[in-house]
Amino acid sequence: MAVSPLAPAAFPDLPVIEGVRLATVAAGVKYRNRDDVMLAVLDPGSVVAGVFTRSATRSAPVLDCQAKIGQESAAGAAILVNSGNSNAFTGAAGQASVDAICKAAAEATGLPAERIFTSSTGVIGQPLPHDRIIAKLDEVVSKVSRMELPNAAKAIMTTDTFPKGASRTITVDGKTVNIAGIAKGSGMIAPDMATMLVYVFTDARISRAALQAIVSEANARTFNNITVDSDTSTSDTLLMGATGASGVDVDGNADFAQAVEEVFRELAHLVVKDGEGATKFVTVNVTGAATDADARTHALSIANSPLVKTAIAGEDPNWGRIVMAVGKSGAAADRDRLTIRFGDILVAEKGWVSPDYREEQGAAVMKQPEISIDVDIGLGQGAATVWTCDLTHGYISINADYRS
Amino acid sequence: MAVSPLAPAAFPDLPVIEGVRLATVAAGVKYRNRDDVMLAVLDPGSVVAGVFTRSATRSAPVLDCQAKIGQESAAGAAILVNSGNSNAFTGAAGQASVDAICKAAAEATGLPAERIFTSSTGVIGQPLPHDRIIAKLDEVVSKVSRMELPNAAKAIMTTDTFPKGASRTITVDGKTVNIAGIAKGSGMIAPDMATMLVYVFTDARISRAALQAIVSEANARTFNNITVDSDTSTSDTLLMGATGASGVDVDGNADFAQAVEEVFRELAHLVVKDGEGATKFVTVNVTGAATDADARTHALSIANSPLVKTAIAGEDPNWGRIVMAVGKSGAAADRDRLTIRFGDILVAEKGWVSPDYREEQGAAVMKQPEISIDVDIGLGQGAATVWTCDLTHGYISINADYRS
Repeated sequence: MAVSPLAPAAFPDLPVIEGVRLATVAAGVKYRNRDDVMLAVLDPGSVVAGVFTRSATRSAPVLDCQAKIGQESAAGAAILVNSGNSNAFTGAAGQASVDAICKAAAEATGLPAERIFTSSTGVIGQPLPHDRIIAKLDEVVSKVSRMELPNAAKAIMTTDTFPKGASRTITVDGKTVNIAGIAKGSGMIAPDMATMLVYVFTDARISRAALQAIVSEANARTFNNITVDSDTSTSDTLLMGATGASGVDVDGNADFAQAVEEVFRELAHLVVKDGEGATKFVTVNVTGAATDADARTHALSIANSPLVKTAIAGEDPNWGRIVMAVGKSGAAADRDRLTIRFGDILVAEKGWVSPDYREEQGAAVMKQPEISIDVDIGLGQGAATVWTCDLTHGYISINADYRS
Repeated sequence: MAVSPLAPAAFPDLPVIEGVRLATVAAGVKYRNRDDVMLAVLDPGSVVAGVFTRSATRSAPVLDCQAKIGQESAAGAAILVNSGNSNAFTGAAGQASVDAICKAAAEATGLPAERIFTSSTGVIGQPLPHDRIIAKLDEVVSKVSRMELPNAAKAIMTTDTFPKGASRTITVDGKTVNIAGIAKGSGMIAPDMATMLVYVFTDARISRAALQAIVSEANARTFNNITVDSDTSTSDTLLMGATGASGVDVDGNADFAQAVEEVFRELAHLVVKDGEGATKFVTVNVTGAATDADARTHALSIANSPLVKTAIAGEDPNWGRIVMAVGKSGAAADRDRLTIRFGDILVAEKGWVSPDYREEQGAAVMKQPEISIDVDIGLGQGAATVWTCDLTHGYISINADYRS
């Protein structure tokens, strides 16, 4: 599959995170001739936080992570991820596979089983051939090293068209703290649905509860505000590990929280830029709503509207569809107070097209690969930002033309 | 544009509704060489009921209809519809156009202005050239006759690929009561959005309040349960007029209410079958939900899911995407209690694919032009049915490839 036209020129240089060692291995879960299992081992004293899909039909690995994520432990931890099979909707066999993998990984790493966090992404509804993963555990454990994040970003890909990584380095009291993460996005592997997996590591020292609070808040502002096609995976997982190896305590440090959010946002944007068939990266800013929640409802209604997304694909400055999406969202709006901008161009205000607006202005904005749509509701102070992509023939081809 | 592959072979024979006279005329609002204005005149003593889009950015004609629909009057009524311009998001000029049209139509018909109901469908955000409509009012009034429903069905089309009509005739106490209606659907006229307009007439005698109750209930079970792309028009309007010309009182008559619902359902299905790019007509039945509302939430989540709709377009029996759509809906579900059927084929049960299911069975169902997806949630007695179509390259072409 062709690399997304929105892909960055190269995978970024990521800092080494002391206290985390990674390796990848080819277990042949489904793919051949590529690494499909990633292992990250975090040193004793590390804490792990996470957020997960809210789907009512979430996968066995997600349920297992959720049962473990709130536990305190000084024993270290491991994150084991396979691509090729999502172990979702696999009945009682699903949890049995997770249990078998965790037990074997605990033996191979010397960690307690309740410190093994697993994710699976790929085909749904087929039993996970967990023996293939277990057979490779000793090999992957023996290979772990500090420099493997780029390879890890590749091993977790399904039909992503490029690996995704981001990092920030901040200085706290004259000492360096590093944050680096990888993600996989909305690539599709028939007959499965898109799955978002995100793993972020830092050498900061922080309590589990404080890290969880930062992760939850940053997630709410980043990954929870992206949408490719409004469909929610059964397997979405974000895990963040803090090793403390820098010796720098960041509990309550706003710069650290900010840097985490920046890494999350950058990874979230990369997921959208690899959205199926995407040719445009779209930022929807809603201001002036009655509440922040209303603003998010409007923004998601715009970002998920097939008519808005196809207009963007056609480079059509179709502000009528923005009006429609605001109107249908269910959140408070007054037709005659709406203001709509494409980029810097004032398109509509006071319930009608702006008298100075000319179609060529909007059309010029729409030709750009990155587009912002700004809507002021005119009712209050509520604001929200959502990121999405366009809806193209490429999306239909990926999801309809090729049979499972 | 090619006629939808789901179109019926012919427009149906509709009974004459005594007390309603119709005509159409070419006013050149936007289209050339076709009738684009429809007038229906209802005799004195007729009652009118209606339901309208819930959009917060609804059009001026919708707001005007809503202000009038609850009033009692024995003066008769008129319904005046134009295609080519929706008079939506046109600021204060929008209501001024409606007022000018209603005033002129009142003079031309001899009816009070508050008994003139108007609808407009077509381009959004452009001032309605209402003078063109007003200039043709005397002509269209002079032409009204009892036999013009088929032409009316054509005059309200935008890019619908076929005109839509349906009827029922029932016998009450040995006398005949007729119900006949027309609709336009989700044809697209750039740069506008789909608009659904429905006009149904009957010669039954009934109070306004009783007719409104029947219309609201039937609408909730039919038009409110169809979705093409989850986008809601600013102009959706359904008006039903009862002339009483049959002399048959149907207040409280369950057969009449049932027949109205059947006409609504048939028209609603025709709207879906003319959905943009549609190649499959899909019935989503959800049973066993905790409540009826939960069942509808699940059914709409399935029917609106781009991944489900593209799978259907690809004739792919992709039950994993049904699981995903149930999981993301937000309504109560338990992965291990779901049962999924494609047509008569049991696909998945108890949290996993059915042991007897073979992919060829599901694939055979998916090749049909009309497909049912039945999901039992396994939690309670809630049930709902939603109708939709698939998501195809045709949808993208109509909405993205052709610039406004």
